[in-house]
Amino acid sequence: MVWDAWGIPAGHRSLPERIRTLLTQVFGVSGNPVARRDEGEVPLRESTLTPTQRAGLVELVGAANVSADHLDRLRHAGGKSTPDLLRRRAEGAQDAPDAVVFPADHDEVLAVLAYCAEHAVAVVPFGGGTSVVGGVEPVRGRFDTVIALDLRRLDRVTDIDPISGTATLGAGLTGPRAERLLAAHGLSLGHFPQSFEFATIGGFAATRSSGQASAGYGRFDDMVQRLKIAAPTGSLELGRAPASAAGPDLRELFVGSEGTLGVITEVTLRVHPIPETVAYQAWSFADFETGSAALRAVVQAGAAPTVLRLSDEVETGINLARSGDIGGNSVAGCLAVTTYEGSVAHVAARNAEAGGLLAAAGGTPLGEKPAQEWERGRFAAPYLRDALLDVGVLCETLETATTWANLTALKAKVTAALTDALSGQGTPALVMCHISHTYPTGASLYFTVVAKQLDDPLAQWLIAKRAAGDAIIAAGGTITHHHAIGTDHRAWLPDEVGDIGVRVLRAVQAELDPTGILNPGKLLP
Amino acid sequence: MVWDAWGIPAGHRSLPERIRTLLTQVFGVSGNPVARRDEGEVPLRESTLTPTQRAGLVELVGAANVSADHLDRLRHAGGKSTPDLLRRRAEGAQDAPDAVVFPADHDEVLAVLAYCAEHAVAVVPFGGGTSVVGGVEPVRGRFDTVIALDLRRLDRVTDIDPISGTATLGAGLTGPRAERLLAAHGLSLGHFPQSFEFATIGGFAATRSSGQASAGYGRFDDMVQRLKIAAPTGSLELGRAPASAAGPDLRELFVGSEGTLGVITEVTLRVHPIPETVAYQAWSFADFETGSAALRAVVQAGAAPTVLRLSDEVETGINLARSGDIGGNSVAGCLAVTTYEGSVAHVAARNAEAGGLLAAAGGTPLGEKPAQEWERGRFAAPYLRDALLDVGVLCETLETATTWANLTALKAKVTAALTDALSGQGTPALVMCHISHTYPTGASLYFTVVAKQLDDPLAQWLIAKRAAGDAIIAAGGTITHHHAIGTDHRAWLPDEVGDIGVRVLRAVQAELDPTGILNPGKLLP
Repeated sequence: MVWDAWGIPAGHRSLPERIRTLLTQVFGVSGNPVARRDEGEVPLRESTLTPTQRAGLVELVGAANVSADHLDRLRHAGGKSTPDLLRRRAEGAQDAPDAVVFPADHDEVLAVLAYCAEHAVAVVPFGGGTSVVGGVEPVRGRFDTVIALDLRRLDRVTDIDPISGTATLGAGLTGPRAERLLAAHGLSLGHFPQSFEFATIGGFAATRSSGQASAGYGRFDDMVQRLKIAAPTGSLELGRAPASAAGPDLRELFVGSEGTLGVITEVTLRVHPIPETVAYQAWSFADFETGSAALRAVVQAGAAPTVLRLSDEVETGINLARSGDIGGNSVAGCLAVTTYEGSVAHVAARNAEAGGLLAAAGGTPLGEKPAQEWERGRFAAPYLRDALLDVGVLCETLETATTWANLTALKAKVTAALTDALSGQGTPALVMCHISHTYPTGASLYFTVVAKQLDDPLAQWLIAKRAAGDAIIAAGGTITHHHAIGTDHRAWLPDEVGDIGVRVLRAVQAELDPTGILNPGKLLP
Repeated sequence: MVWDAWGIPAGHRSLPERIRTLLTQVFGVSGNPVARRDEGEVPLRESTLTPTQRAGLVELVGAANVSADHLDRLRHAGGKSTPDLLRRRAEGAQDAPDAVVFPADHDEVLAVLAYCAEHAVAVVPFGGGTSVVGGVEPVRGRFDTVIALDLRRLDRVTDIDPISGTATLGAGLTGPRAERLLAAHGLSLGHFPQSFEFATIGGFAATRSSGQASAGYGRFDDMVQRLKIAAPTGSLELGRAPASAAGPDLRELFVGSEGTLGVITEVTLRVHPIPETVAYQAWSFADFETGSAALRAVVQAGAAPTVLRLSDEVETGINLARSGDIGGNSVAGCLAVTTYEGSVAHVAARNAEAGGLLAAAGGTPLGEKPAQEWERGRFAAPYLRDALLDVGVLCETLETATTWANLTALKAKVTAALTDALSGQGTPALVMCHISHTYPTGASLYFTVVAKQLDDPLAQWLIAKRAAGDAIIAAGGTITHHHAIGTDHRAWLPDEVGDIGVRVLRAVQAELDPTGILNPGKLLP
């Protein structure tokens, strides 16, 4: 990925004229792109990797797989949150890991961790580098040296079981590469978060990722059957059966552990045959409350589509769900998108049952086209954020989840917190929201915030982010539904698990990583 | 419950004549019931509870709620495995907790745990006492005194959210009582394990119970939204949202912790409206392999019924799935039972889709009746075991789970291990099996074993159990799908989670229960 923006250069795009006009009207920004720094010329802090450390690591993984090169370090300098990108666009030296190590397999990961534990080197496990919560920041903690442990070479499918519908995938496989390898066997994983094109299997597991087809295929944590983990004190393999009552489920300690308890090297996942057919159906609802009640009816009836989403009035109004037409003709009400995957019989039955419930709950069918448009543009939003940042507009997202009964109240409180925090600093804010993940007992809320960049946009956003996080906790939501904790949500972890919960996590960490080399400064407050 | 058998006296029944005949033919047993001991006359080890300890506990929960009475101690003497019952039928003194304490609420549980930690008293959390793996044995460990902590007074519904479909239930509520309280709100939990009539909400959570409607409503662990836990070092409340990416899911440490990490005092669960309608449909398959492939097709298509079960040829042949007709007219092939719950539209759609798949996979529809018969008798099997034990027949169950691809091989190996271990000791064995819990990637296997009791039936069974457990692990199954670890499966826990996994669990235990008072001798090897 580009070091100071999302994705690849070919994905970048400039803002449509109508959006520039809108931005000028609402925020008074000029709309002229500002220059960015060339990656070859960005000053980096000097690497502290000693010749002895380099030699020690080279012995484990080979000379070609230990790099302290400028570009390798720069490209492992962190994730892709708006604060990350704002920091990279600022003047001055960029922090970066002191070296990047590319192990070939589980045993090399294990050896590198043992070496680093013995020689006091911090380790940041690195997959696609798409974290938006500071999960891969090169934090040294109490150590002089920090390496990024890039897992891209763990990129094999080591087992396929088409009868049971499972596949064992290397942690370093990206979403598209995993899908291509599975497709050769007629199978699909069906995990499509917005980071799909760059993020990795190990990263999905380590952060409790949730994909856009979660209504049909579940969250990534639901898909995990078995994990292989390398820790400084040894290896674990967890998950013997589709379900078990053999004590606590230790997989659930490592799923979501964000590289702080061990490095996930291999994941056995539930997969499914490539669907025979896909049906698309968009719906319109008068307002968000009507729409969310309709989604609830469908999910609670056990009739969930594969994709089930609802944009609020603001997001629907600017067509954010239909990226080809953002800022185009304004649409009233709230747009919902459904897709159905599976056999012809299953798709027909499910579409009929869910459609009946959505219509009964006040939905107006809009046909296939808006749902297909949503699917076409579904990975494009982060590129749009780059174009907005370029012209002096602040754009960031945050997300939460709560019960159905609490959903509208939580949405209102977070929206108010964001709006107040930004207007209090002198800029109006546009706050949009959608539901993209649904459960029988509740749903996620995903907010997109757009405002004018003030003099110090980083500080400006951190004030808004703090206000939103506090509002989420005060209103009973979770601090993150699928973005993880990283550095950015650490302050709220005690609100999630309590002080004793934090102590339990520290006890587990002390057992697995006694010297504390693993991803310092992440997850635990 | 009766101290030395399952359930209540009204449930007990004698064996039908045709079964006595069968038993005489196959095992050569006489069929005459043997006398059992009167509970008032069973000698108990002297209680070691000191007057000081009694006074300390009385101060916390009141004099009426600390008992060292003979009958209270006897009725908390352990669970309901066949070894438990065989031990109770033997001569000699019966082990029992030194006292039984009945706290009123979470705070009293917390206070009792703090007291016991300070005064070196072991604590066995006690729900319905239905464990079949030694989970509530009065093991003292390194302590002189052990109490049973009976949670029956934690029996309230403290919150109902019909919009979100959640209910917060006290840990001491039994299955039927929870269903009655929910029914007053038009709601149902839908968790119906064989222990349903006596087991409790807290016990279901602590042991990862799975009910007969798991295909529709999920395992008990799937239903858990939030847990409240009392530990010697303090309280935890875990689960802020229907789904979260806020780090490791610590709920999954306590679900399945079997009272070794804390006492679950309150559980918020997913519930659903009492179904509008229920449809029943039984099926016949030529053999187990055809039937299990049919179940797999249904589950992998996302078309699972609410109940989905398949008996193998032996179980079908003696009609064990239809308790009103056990040993009656023999039926060929393999019987499958399906039920469908929900709205009229949902039931019709799902029945049509699943029925189509079952028929396409070789199923012959048998109509409603066999499925209704199964439902009527579904809690009766443990009473049948008592009647068998009474006449000198050994009867016990054990269970596992594995992937679909491994199911037939695992079944054959466990059957062979049981048959060989019993025939090697001089008795033929009847080994039956059914699938009662299905997942997209695999299913459970539940074995019922019947043999002649030899001179030392306890030792006889332990040899067979050891052989079966070793065969399960060697063949890639889990040592328990829904019975938990307790004392009986401890030796195999390292096979499930590895040595490092065991160390992680010990580290968590040391943090929450530094003096080790909680349920000694359970879960951890």
